[in-house]
This record gives sequence, C-alpha cells and structure tokens, in this order.
Amino acid sequence: MQGAVLYGPRDVRFEQRETPKISKPTDAIIRLSASCICGSDLWPYRGIQPTAQPTAMGHEYCGVVEEVGKEVRKIRRGQFVVGSFATSDNTCAICRDGYQSSCIQREFMSGAQAPFLRVPLADGTLVATNDLPPKELVPSLLATSDVLGTGWFAADAANVKPGSTVVVVGDGAVGLLGVLSARQMGAERIIAMSRHASRQKLAREFGATDIVTERGDEGVARIKELTNGIGADSVLECVGTQESMMQAIKSTRPGGYVSYVGVPHGVSLDGEQLFFSHVHLHGGPAAVRRYLPELIQLVLNGKINPGKVFDLTLPLGQVAEGYRAMDERRAIKTLLKL
Amino acid sequence: MQGAVLYGPRDVRFEQRETPKISKPTDAIIRLSASCICGSDLWPYRGIQPTAQPTAMGHEYCGVVEEVGKEVRKIRRGQFVVGSFATSDNTCAICRDGYQSSCIQREFMSGAQAPFLRVPLADGTLVATNDLPPKELVPSLLATSDVLGTGWFAADAANVKPGSTVVVVGDGAVGLLGVLSARQMGAERIIAMSRHASRQKLAREFGATDIVTERGDEGVARIKELTNGIGADSVLECVGTQESMMQAIKSTRPGGYVSYVGVPHGVSLDGEQLFFSHVHLHGGPAAVRRYLPELIQLVLNGKINPGKVFDLTLPLGQVAEGYRAMDERRAIKTLLKL
Repeated sequence: MQGAVLYGPRDVRFEQRETPKISKPTDAIIRLSASCICGSDLWPYRGIQPTAQPTAMGHEYCGVVEEVGKEVRKIRRGQFVVGSFATSDNTCAICRDGYQSSCIQREFMSGAQAPFLRVPLADGTLVATNDLPPKELVPSLLATSDVLGTGWFAADAANVKPGSTVVVVGDGAVGLLGVLSARQMGAERIIAMSRHASRQKLAREFGATDIVTERGDEGVARIKELTNGIGADSVLECVGTQESMMQAIKSTRPGGYVSYVGVPHGVSLDGEQLFFSHVHLHGGPAAVRRYLPELIQLVLNGKINPGKVFDLTLPLGQVAEGYRAMDERRAIKTLLKL
Repeated sequence: MQGAVLYGPRDVRFEQRETPKISKPTDAIIRLSASCICGSDLWPYRGIQPTAQPTAMGHEYCGVVEEVGKEVRKIRRGQFVVGSFATSDNTCAICRDGYQSSCIQREFMSGAQAPFLRVPLADGTLVATNDLPPKELVPSLLATSDVLGTGWFAADAANVKPGSTVVVVGDGAVGLLGVLSARQMGAERIIAMSRHASRQKLAREFGATDIVTERGDEGVARIKELTNGIGADSVLECVGTQESMMQAIKSTRPGGYVSYVGVPHGVSLDGEQLFFSHVHLHGGPAAVRRYLPELIQLVLNGKINPGKVFDLTLPLGQVAEGYRAMDERRAIKTLLKL
C-alpha cells in the first residue's frame, strides 16, 4: 500500500509502505474509511519536534475491520469502528478511572494516513457501531477519533457546566471543537479567541457567543472586560505555547479551571505565579476513549456535525499538499479521501 | 503594646509597636487569645524571601472583639472570633464561589504576633462562636485560622474522598494537619512522607497509615510500590520547593490530583512533563474562610484536636526563640502565650 511518511521538516512523502499485518493476538487490522491530518502533525512537520527517522504519519482513524487477532473477543471482522490516538486495554485501574490515554499498556498510534492500519489492543481501543454508518457521516465519525474527543476532553477538564462562561484559546480544529463541546455541555457564554474570519465564522456556528481578536495581555484585558473584571470560569488552552498557556491562565478567574490539550512546546510555568492565579489546571493526552461511545452516538443521531472542521478534502495521494495547506493556515483541517 | 517585628534574616525583635486602632469603618480590633508562628514566616526569617523594611509579623489569630468600626454589622464587641490570614468581603463573586483568599478586596494579614490586631473587612473575614470557648480549646481554634485551614484546603483541592489513597509531602504543621484533614474526609490510606520520629508519631496519631522516609525519586519509587505501580489518587504538596513539587506530581496516578498550598519558592514546572503526568493541579492561598465555620464546629465538638501541632509554647516575649526552634526544626510549631 501507499501512505504518508515524514522524513524531516516539510518533507512528507506519499510512498510505498508495507501493508500492516496482525503481529499480536490482540491486534486488529482496519481498512480506513477516511483519514486526515492533525494539528499536532504540524509540530514534527515544522521541525519543532525532531524526526529521528522516517515516520509513518497519522493517528486519527475510523473504518471497517478486516481481520482480528486470536485473542480479540469483542471486535469482529466487518464492523465499523473508531479508535483513539492512544491504545488502551480499557481494563486497568487507570482506564477504569477514565484515563485510557495513560493506560498502563498505552501505545501512541501512527501510520493512519494510509489505506490500512494495525490497531493494538483492539478490544479496549476500538468502539464499534451497530451498523455501517452512512457515508456522509464518515468525516464526523473520523473527527470523534481525536480532534473532537480532544476538544471534548478540554471542555470537560476545564469543568464546563450549564451556565459557565468559557474562553477558548486557539482557533485550530481542536479549539473550534472545544467551542462545540462547551456548547453541548451547556455553557452560557463562549468566547473564542481568533483573528481569522473563516475560523471566527465556524466558531460562531459551533456556538461561540463572542469573539476576541486580541492576544497576549491585551487579549487577557479584553476577557476581563467581558467577565466583570474577574476572568472566565473555564478556559480551554488549545495551542501549546508559552504565550497561549499564560493567556489562558491569566484569563481565568481565581478558583476557575484551565485545561490544556496540545503537547506543550517550550512551556514553563512559574510556581509562584500559578499559585496566586488560584486556578485549577488539568490537561494531558485527551482521554478520547472515555467519550467515544457518547460522541459517536451524538454524530449518528445528527446532534453534532464536527466534520465541518474539514475545510479541505484531498485524495490521500495529495497528502503533502494537505500538510502545506494547514501549515500555511490556508486550511483548518484536511480530510484525506481513500 | 509590644509585638514581633522582623528586620532581616534571623533578626526578629520583640519591641514597642503602636497599638492598632480602627482605621476604616469596616475594621474590627481584637484582643488575641493566643498567637503563633507559621511555617511561611520562616521564608522571610531565613532570608529566602527578602524583607524590604521592618515588618510586624504574624497572620494567625483568634481572640475577643474589643471594638468595631461604624459599618460593621455582624461582628460585635465581646465575641470570640477566628479569621483567615487573608481578609475577604465574603460577598464578591470570587468569595461566593468559595475563594475568599482571592477576594477582590483581599489584604494579607500581618502583625498578629502581638496582643492586639486590626482586622479589615471584619464582617466578611471573621467568624464568631456563640459563646466564649473554654481556654483549653484556644490552641485548636487558633489552628483553624491558618494551619488547619490550609491542610484542609490541601486535602479538598487534592480531591480527597472516602476511600482515597493519599500522599502528604511535607511533615511540617500544614502537612500533619493535611493528614488529619484527609482522615476526616474519609481517606482509606494516608501515606506521610517524613523522616523525623516525632513528626511521624504525630502523623500516625492524626491518621497516617504508612510512613515513607525516602525523598525525591526514591520516595516516588516507594510510593509507586505502595500503590500498585500507578501512584496515589491525591497528593498534598505542603512544602513549596522544586523537589517537593516534583515528588508530589510524580507520586500521583494519571488522572489523580495534586494540591499545593505553600507559596512556591523557585519552582518551575515543565509544561510537557506536566502534560504527560496527566494530573489535576490546584493550589494557591488556602481558602480558609470557606471552611472556618465547619472547622470551628469540629473543634468545639471535640471531633478534632489540631492544636496538637503546637509542640512548643512560649510567652509572646520569647517570640525570637520560637522562630529559632522552628528554623532548627526543634519545634513543629510554636504557640505564643499572651
């Protein structure tokens, strides 16, 4: 088969790769229904995170089970499945607590920008639908695999509740779906920080009530103005830089909640400053598996349409252009057709 | 009157000070029933936190109201009262949310190592008992003002629940009362990290089920051994150094909770490390006022005896020796008699 392989900064190639096979009895092989490019793929693409060796890219996936290993009990050939970017046995103490993305057997997925994918710990990692879903729902189902699950985790980790005032820092696909998630959780006011017209529009469509275009301390001052001078109840940090993290912390009221869901790059938090901010801070690899059954159902019932974050669709063979478009912010998120 | 004044590193003097007077109509003046020295007083005493000018010390207090300003409505002359180290109006949005120690009108108290004290925002800051309490309860009531309130906040901020496995980092008075608080909140297992026999003894008396004497990464390894390899549900960081903070974070299970209640000194948290730890982090100036009514009642009902942390009692005039004894770790906490 042919798939995307990253060789180094801005060097992603569509090339021949070995078709994956069952290598452990708990594996499944799936035929992807669609694939896509994640905002986090841009860190190595941009060279901010080094690429030690050619790496098969892609960790968001949904598709039809082709084959399962001998010890797979729940997942069956022919089912439509969605899984998280982190594998999980879904039985260990950490999984039972809802933190499957830190499962004691966790592996981070890779290689999903291709027609076939090997999924370890298939029974714990994958969630199957009852029937094959209609084709038009595939983009939204694919979104549950990571980008929506991550936005949802961000909202949940930031304690979004009915009536909350929420700020979302970052207008990438995760931030935009953080807006959607906060709306679903009943937030009353959702302030999206964005300076891009097309992203502002989608934020509003997903439920944002206010847009703030300022950044850094100016952005913080604007948020304070909008929140009686004290800051928001919940702030979702969906970027991962020092500036965005401080913007999030400073925009939160004392006693409020900050979540962060992008791997922080070059972020360092001063203990004393954090102390006097008085915020709750929680983040990490999004516990997508915890939410998958609920999110899949919301998509199947037509309650949410997270697939709208895909504003560029390309055939898998043009994956390199998909990266370029996202790198240059011409596209929010690229869907790769198979 | 005479009170304690800090001039610089290890230079605390008992000297003539002006007796406080009502300066704002919302003030009260109280005659202290007892005073004490806080672990946090040791930061400036040791010179780790600079003392720009001679500073009247002490911020833990209980006593009898001598006089109230014209706008004080709830607190009356003759009442026995306890207050927090942070003043609060107890009516602003942040107070109503339970974060009185970040009240929009907050001032940090000082000057309580003296016979009289001016308390701003008396109605919001002070909690009065129905009757004058018996003398033998004064040390425990004094403890509610900060050291117990802070240990309690630490346990609450670390999400201690019935059945929790809890680690307490730091065997100072706050850490020891963190143990007591965790026990009151129903923790099943409480692991105190301490290498001092007398403090271990008090930790056990307050409810610790295990003692770990190792520190740093060795301490973390020991905690992991005691928690099926995954770490504790809740970890209370009651020191405020880089080592203690990292020890706390690394001892916590993914999805678990870390609280920190001592002002961090020289602490810097790496964003990526924090991200993959997957913990909840919450701390700041303890919201003592939120808990005072409950804590005072627990003391009055004889349910808890937090005054046991005072293992040295001196007359106020010997305050300098009180600091020395705590600095040299000869005493856990010094009670100052008036």
